[in-house]
Amino acid sequence: MSGYRIAKRFEPEIYIQGVLAGDRVMLSRAITLIESSLPSDRILASKVIEGLIPHSGKSIRIGITGVPGVGKSTFIESFGSMLCNQGNKLAVLAIDPSSKRTGGSILGDKTRMVSLSNHPNAYIRPTAAGAALGGVAIHTRESILLCEAAGFNVIFVETVGVGQSETLVHGMVDFFLLLMLAGAGDELQGIKKGIMEMADAVVINKADGDNAKAAQRAKVDYQNALHLFPPASGGWIPKVMTCSALQHTGLTEIWDLIQSFSEITRSNGYFFTKRKEQNVHWMHETIQYLLQSDFFGNSRVKESYETKKHLVEQGLISPTMAAYDLLKLYSED
Amino acid sequence: MSGYRIAKRFEPEIYIQGVLAGDRVMLSRAITLIESSLPSDRILASKVIEGLIPHSGKSIRIGITGVPGVGKSTFIESFGSMLCNQGNKLAVLAIDPSSKRTGGSILGDKTRMVSLSNHPNAYIRPTAAGAALGGVAIHTRESILLCEAAGFNVIFVETVGVGQSETLVHGMVDFFLLLMLAGAGDELQGIKKGIMEMADAVVINKADGDNAKAAQRAKVDYQNALHLFPPASGGWIPKVMTCSALQHTGLTEIWDLIQSFSEITRSNGYFFTKRKEQNVHWMHETIQYLLQSDFFGNSRVKESYETKKHLVEQGLISPTMAAYDLLKLYSED
Repeated sequence: MSGYRIAKRFEPEIYIQGVLAGDRVMLSRAITLIESSLPSDRILASKVIEGLIPHSGKSIRIGITGVPGVGKSTFIESFGSMLCNQGNKLAVLAIDPSSKRTGGSILGDKTRMVSLSNHPNAYIRPTAAGAALGGVAIHTRESILLCEAAGFNVIFVETVGVGQSETLVHGMVDFFLLLMLAGAGDELQGIKKGIMEMADAVVINKADGDNAKAAQRAKVDYQNALHLFPPASGGWIPKVMTCSALQHTGLTEIWDLIQSFSEITRSNGYFFTKRKEQNVHWMHETIQYLLQSDFFGNSRVKESYETKKHLVEQGLISPTMAAYDLLKLYSED
Repeated sequence: MSGYRIAKRFEPEIYIQGVLAGDRVMLSRAITLIESSLPSDRILASKVIEGLIPHSGKSIRIGITGVPGVGKSTFIESFGSMLCNQGNKLAVLAIDPSSKRTGGSILGDKTRMVSLSNHPNAYIRPTAAGAALGGVAIHTRESILLCEAAGFNVIFVETVGVGQSETLVHGMVDFFLLLMLAGAGDELQGIKKGIMEMADAVVINKADGDNAKAAQRAKVDYQNALHLFPPASGGWIPKVMTCSALQHTGLTEIWDLIQSFSEITRSNGYFFTKRKEQNVHWMHETIQYLLQSDFFGNSRVKESYETKKHLVEQGLISPTMAAYDLLKLYSED
């Protein structure tokens, strides 16, 4: 076995065969490889992905979002364990724009979901820290493909933190699930505008004990509200459900809903159209990300950026002009 | 007066003084100048904008959107005429992503709004045709500044057509008004997901005759729905109103609402914070637009793009890899 380098790398075939065999250690190593920014790793990663991509795609990709406090970890733990017990193979990935979670993400993720992380059918990939959001999104997208090639038929992509990441997750999943609480004035603060309308399902969690009635009322309210929204192109009407992740109620119904979504959109073709569109969008986003990384990493741009930004903020120069000025500095090679 | 060129150009001072004097012919010429893609025009335009930008900003910028059939032209005609009769100076700009309106846009806009276009206090700028959406947005943003420098204190930015343009308009205005109809199942089809949540006001038009009751019911429904949305950062709670642009009812109330929005957000500082953020965002968008224009205009990229896109759509290569491949072709200079 040649190909060892300082960071312990293998030949592409080793990764490919390992992932296809469902070897989790090799899957983790392959994901670490695609997360690397070293040019040599990038070349190796592209060969690994190329070998695995024909084996990817056979899963339902579910985005799960909701503000902190909504019980996202407990939901993923309960819902995920149920799916694993039914024989599904589940991979849980996360997008974490802040990348600054305390205690290290590996420990964090495993502590959050103890029973799920010990389940033989589950694979929880800790969040890579330290990358820009755009970069993280690229890695998460490729990680989905790798997990699929490794035989996982259900993929959760969880947003950690709030803001831009929801839109990114929405762009890489088949089904987008928004977790909410009943009577949640404060909770709404954390949700970015426009996210609610993107949800394929709104699930009101903590529908238990004293909270059960309020959750039921909230369900009706949201259901009425969603009727006023523009329908998604696939003909799917977003549903509102309640559940208690803690008491394991309502979870079967959510899975039934997701399966019915999958059946309907697969039979009308929307499922595949959407994936195609997501792929092209992803290519464009990557181009954009790489162009911008190069631009904002340029030393002359860096030197002038803050001054220009300040002038723009103060309305002293036109944003367009500032952009042209920075572009001029950038292209001075 | 020197500075005449083939396309009839003036010295920057001529444009600046003309615009500041409120000369509409000169304003139109200045807008035509900033819409030009000629490098020499770009330099001239930047001088004109530089001279005018200290005089810009003193207006309320109102985005108006809604699908075809909602009565947008009639609304702008009625609402705009009312404002002009009250002594306001109104400029109406449009973002038209399709850029393919029949009969030429000048004729189109003036025919649509006959009485407004003849009002001495109104200035209607026809849509520039033939540019890409990103480019159009840049021009519309600069046109806003020019109109403000010319003394217009109310700016309407109208979306023509549906889709991406709403998001762009939202990013360049202070107040975002969404026109709707009562009981509008079909109408909803044309609205992009997420737009509803961005509205500062939802106005249900055609609340007249047999339709009045339905409009009233729709108002209540939307008002209830909007309560379930995340609040905007400025503490403004979106309102739902009804009006009949045809019968000129409800228009005073809409103007009162916009003025109250302006007062509240000016006094809590949100108005200015948002404009600052919009300026920085606009700078970034322009950078992005220019980087992408250069990229997608590259002959080697053009040559390979469709093939790559096809492979990506079919899931035969990773979108990330396709992006890297195209980037490699791009940087081969």
